[in-house]
Amino acid sequence: MSGLVSLVGAGPGDPELLTLKALRRLREADLVLYDALVAPQVVALAPQARRFCVGKRGFRPSVSQHTINRLLVRAAQRGQRVVRLKGGDPFVFGRGGEEALALVAAGQPFEVVPGVSSALAAPALAGVPVTHRGLSSGVLVVSGHAEAAWWPALSALEPQSVTVVILMGLATRDAVATALLERGWPRDTPAAVLWSASTPEAASWRGTLAGLGAAEVPSGSDDAPATVVVGRVVALAARLGGAVEDGTGKLSAGFVGA
Amino acid sequence: MSGLVSLVGAGPGDPELLTLKALRRLREADLVLYDALVAPQVVALAPQARRFCVGKRGFRPSVSQHTINRLLVRAAQRGQRVVRLKGGDPFVFGRGGEEALALVAAGQPFEVVPGVSSALAAPALAGVPVTHRGLSSGVLVVSGHAEAAWWPALSALEPQSVTVVILMGLATRDAVATALLERGWPRDTPAAVLWSASTPEAASWRGTLAGLGAAEVPSGSDDAPATVVVGRVVALAARLGGAVEDGTGKLSAGFVGA
Repeated sequence: MSGLVSLVGAGPGDPELLTLKALRRLREADLVLYDALVAPQVVALAPQARRFCVGKRGFRPSVSQHTINRLLVRAAQRGQRVVRLKGGDPFVFGRGGEEALALVAAGQPFEVVPGVSSALAAPALAGVPVTHRGLSSGVLVVSGHAEAAWWPALSALEPQSVTVVILMGLATRDAVATALLERGWPRDTPAAVLWSASTPEAASWRGTLAGLGAAEVPSGSDDAPATVVVGRVVALAARLGGAVEDGTGKLSAGFVGA
Repeated sequence: MSGLVSLVGAGPGDPELLTLKALRRLREADLVLYDALVAPQVVALAPQARRFCVGKRGFRPSVSQHTINRLLVRAAQRGQRVVRLKGGDPFVFGRGGEEALALVAAGQPFEVVPGVSSALAAPALAGVPVTHRGLSSGVLVVSGHAEAAWWPALSALEPQSVTVVILMGLATRDAVATALLERGWPRDTPAAVLWSASTPEAASWRGTLAGLGAAEVPSGSDDAPATVVVGRVVALAARLGGAVEDGTGKLSAGFVGA
């Protein structure tokens, strides 16, 4: 008699951007293992479950991946319903694939519940459609964590051929900007940094690729997750709201344009 | 006294992959304008609203974009709560940006409610994490509709440097495969075509880039939305479930691996 492990995407932060299925799995769960970036209000939707933060900001898991995998398997083998809750989508830079492989290796049934990825939602909520006729016909999503991860993808890109989204992109914004400029991207290509998208703490910077490296972190956002967006579509934010400019937190889950 | 227009993502198909906010907006709506690809079960979540299919399969809107924009503005100006419901996410190849600009031009308040994009969810539900350590450190999403749209992005890509997802990619699968092969992508790069992800009609093909052009459409899927995925991560589907291979519809909203 075996339980079920659900790899669940928690979305970008606003609890209302959770899917109906994610909510149902949280309500049914016996055990929830969640990442540090998941909003407390989302974790609170499973009050009956044992809940453990297993970590992970940047490179440093507070609990090792091996231990997480073992916890998932062991609880499910005791018949429990286990939710592995990750910010955004579990299969977009979430190591969901590694956990899924560990579950398969242990013979443990599991499912994937996709979530709203910050890679697309953070720009949208700031008034930036990642694709737009005449401006961008594609979007490339990379992680800013390690240069080995973004360099091969970004260095080959035809200037302004697509919108570039860099998740966890704050620390490497200078290196990324330099790489794109060296590849021939115009210095005035619009760029933005978006912190804590979809939450009351939302903040943002908007400028050009040439200025991206020196973009200042708003006070209070030092530890907040940041999404970097580069491409001509970023200019639309000036017309689609003003949410990017002020970052006053009025965009709790969508913004009202004017 | 003015209403509100909500540009809402309906997700990939399964009504349970709707967000809580999308459900709330549907329940409050006076008017719902939805695209042809939105599942009937999702539209049915707004039984009190007037509901109109405005169209749009491929290039041909059954109602012109100009008329859609006018309908949105007029209803909202009469104080109505209007939901513009789009498959997946409204700002990922959904023309959401164009509608948002029209609303801004008319002085009409609006909001964006991001949805789960098929670009990421369709692969996930087939056992394909679009990113995975050692296999892919990024994902490029393009639309297969017009060669002008995907060619500049794909032709520059370093072979296998990222996962490539082509939304509405069926008609151009041969041209896309040829372009990638000419760019130097290995013939045996894993590839998949995923139809009707997250619904009982889900079906799929899996093979190599060399075989992609000749991938056959399963019976019953001729008019279904198709997502094409190319990249080394596609090979993980063989271990993460078998959902890709059989396409029996057992993956109503997530799949159970074995």
